[in-house]
Amino acid sequence: MLYTPEKEISRRIEKLKTLMEKASMDGAFFHYKIDYYYLSGTMQDALLFVPLQEEPILFVKRELTRARRESPLNLILPVRSAKEITKQIKPMKRVGLQLDVLPYNDVLKFREVIGDCELINVSPLTKELRKVKSPFEIGLIEKAADIQKKVYKMVPEFLREGMTEIELGGMLEAYAKTLGHEGLLRVRSLNYEAYSWHIISGKTGSIVSQSDSPMGGLGLSPAFPVGASMKRIKRGEPILIDFGICYHGYQVDQTRMYAIGNMPELYVRAYEACREILYRVLDKVLEGKKSRELFEYSKRLADEMGYGDVYLGYGSHKVRFLAHGIGIELAELPFIAANHEYPIEEGAVFAIEPKMVFPKKGACGIENTVLIEKGNYRIITDGDEDILIL
Amino acid sequence: MLYTPEKEISRRIEKLKTLMEKASMDGAFFHYKIDYYYLSGTMQDALLFVPLQEEPILFVKRELTRARRESPLNLILPVRSAKEITKQIKPMKRVGLQLDVLPYNDVLKFREVIGDCELINVSPLTKELRKVKSPFEIGLIEKAADIQKKVYKMVPEFLREGMTEIELGGMLEAYAKTLGHEGLLRVRSLNYEAYSWHIISGKTGSIVSQSDSPMGGLGLSPAFPVGASMKRIKRGEPILIDFGICYHGYQVDQTRMYAIGNMPELYVRAYEACREILYRVLDKVLEGKKSRELFEYSKRLADEMGYGDVYLGYGSHKVRFLAHGIGIELAELPFIAANHEYPIEEGAVFAIEPKMVFPKKGACGIENTVLIEKGNYRIITDGDEDILIL
Repeated sequence: MLYTPEKEISRRIEKLKTLMEKASMDGAFFHYKIDYYYLSGTMQDALLFVPLQEEPILFVKRELTRARRESPLNLILPVRSAKEITKQIKPMKRVGLQLDVLPYNDVLKFREVIGDCELINVSPLTKELRKVKSPFEIGLIEKAADIQKKVYKMVPEFLREGMTEIELGGMLEAYAKTLGHEGLLRVRSLNYEAYSWHIISGKTGSIVSQSDSPMGGLGLSPAFPVGASMKRIKRGEPILIDFGICYHGYQVDQTRMYAIGNMPELYVRAYEACREILYRVLDKVLEGKKSRELFEYSKRLADEMGYGDVYLGYGSHKVRFLAHGIGIELAELPFIAANHEYPIEEGAVFAIEPKMVFPKKGACGIENTVLIEKGNYRIITDGDEDILIL
Repeated sequence: MLYTPEKEISRRIEKLKTLMEKASMDGAFFHYKIDYYYLSGTMQDALLFVPLQEEPILFVKRELTRARRESPLNLILPVRSAKEITKQIKPMKRVGLQLDVLPYNDVLKFREVIGDCELINVSPLTKELRKVKSPFEIGLIEKAADIQKKVYKMVPEFLREGMTEIELGGMLEAYAKTLGHEGLLRVRSLNYEAYSWHIISGKTGSIVSQSDSPMGGLGLSPAFPVGASMKRIKRGEPILIDFGICYHGYQVDQTRMYAIGNMPELYVRAYEACREILYRVLDKVLEGKKSRELFEYSKRLADEMGYGDVYLGYGSHKVRFLAHGIGIELAELPFIAANHEYPIEEGAVFAIEPKMVFPKKGACGIENTVLIEKGNYRIITDGDEDILIL
């Protein structure tokens, strides 16, 4: 088991403090574990306090021993009540809280601890920090990609005509777990639950659902109406496997296409168009084009190739992003999207996924996780992108 | 795929309105999908509005066709902006929102829609409703339990000396999915993520973690520090399998004990004590004792049998509940817990789990999902409770 090095944590805290100072925050609290994992190294039940002028304090609510092992932060106190926290903090004027995820009632209750100060949403600061990955993080992402490559290598072993989408999903998941895949993906959302088994075949590829995805899949029930379903996989239909992996909290995303017997020409050609869009957009990323420009450029390419109607979904169900940053959350900065205005920086890691959805027919597409480094791009996920016909 | 019948939905909405009237709410909004699934039958991206005096409106944000198929509610409108919602509602004085889960900033933003009215947390009302299960719900819970029985029957097929905990977890998960298990469990919590693969063996049984559980397990990394781990399963150690199943959103929970070769007497005796506590507490449930009394009674029993130090955890890590209601959330009303003051009603479904944790050694315990009906209890999960030695 790998722990986040002390230097890594202190660099992150330092950068956070710089952003806090710019935002005139006296201190910030992190209740949501995704960000306090990033800033402390532990996901044990805790609350992280970062005062602008002093050392951070991790208030541990339950398992102190594990928190101490996992987190290099100096001060870790076992804490069970609001008063114990109040005792450790000085009065502040402007305080950062994760107002985008912390429930309303929890914020009101937290007033007991911090008193009557101005509340600022601190999440934009951690989102900004996490936009660029460190070598340590890239190492974990590469490890996740290694697992993913091994998992995709098993598709030809597992995939059989007549099996259900979910059966294939379960087999890949089981194998992935033996290699260290944590079995869950994470998104910063009240209602959206991420999952690995996004396996859709033939007509289920054209089904839209709850998720902000060009194709949602049928899922298993109205209570989980996304991803792999009980539909049986048939000969001669496009099989899209979008199977995310999570290793030590770091995620990678990839989509590859398969078919049994043959893949209809419609999808073969559309897949090649997706692949071309992916690489032509990556070239423009290197030229420093802004997110929105990159997105619009990809749409123009799809239009020129005759796929305007089906690119990133159809009708009112088109999605407004082509790529999502990826790390300890499945969708984080930077995005390549209709309403984002920044260029993609050195150190960014993102999953770029041009996809086509043909109404009532099916879907195809490609997805790679990509790192921007040394003025170039590097595909972290599997180099083998060809459609595999079994 | 099963859809929630219209009568079921209208009964739930009627009961909700009765509670809303008591709480003097003019209307209530449901943003969090768990409750709007319960009240509407769909988990498509939507917002449910229940006015006290009129018919509910489901504002659908994305996939209208699926929402229409899944939900019998009459009015379903495609909606993309706050203004479109405002147009459909009358001015109100006291409005219910899910303030226990809805993020602070989302509540502030929702003011645009509802204006300056008094906000009330509506979640206690839906929690109260969901405390009692309908025959339709019990049918789904029974179906989940059928899947669970089949999954546990595979343990002797899959379990081998030297395999890792997570390998076994993955195999059970893969098999469960082929039967309709949705691959995720759900809890109403910012930070706690439920999972099925709570498989712990030998010393990992004594490891405490982030979760409010007597034993947390080691997990795969600091980023997911709970449940099955890379530890290899050995001969002669207690193997605890607590593998939850979710079918059409309804969950069941069960724990059984296994060993390869032999189970040390310490755990065999403690397991029998757990089993005795489980059934003696169930007898007291039928006598109408209150939740807290039932919890205290179970503690007295454990004390008398000489297990006071290890019952429901050790030292400062003891948990303060013996049973959790279960349904579309893994932990819902009713609880058998230190600070709950109600009796357990007819129609309640709960998972009762007396467990013992021996520091630095391991853990054992039993868990059954139980329904209270016709003045009696019925164990919904597997009738076979014996320790299985392979």
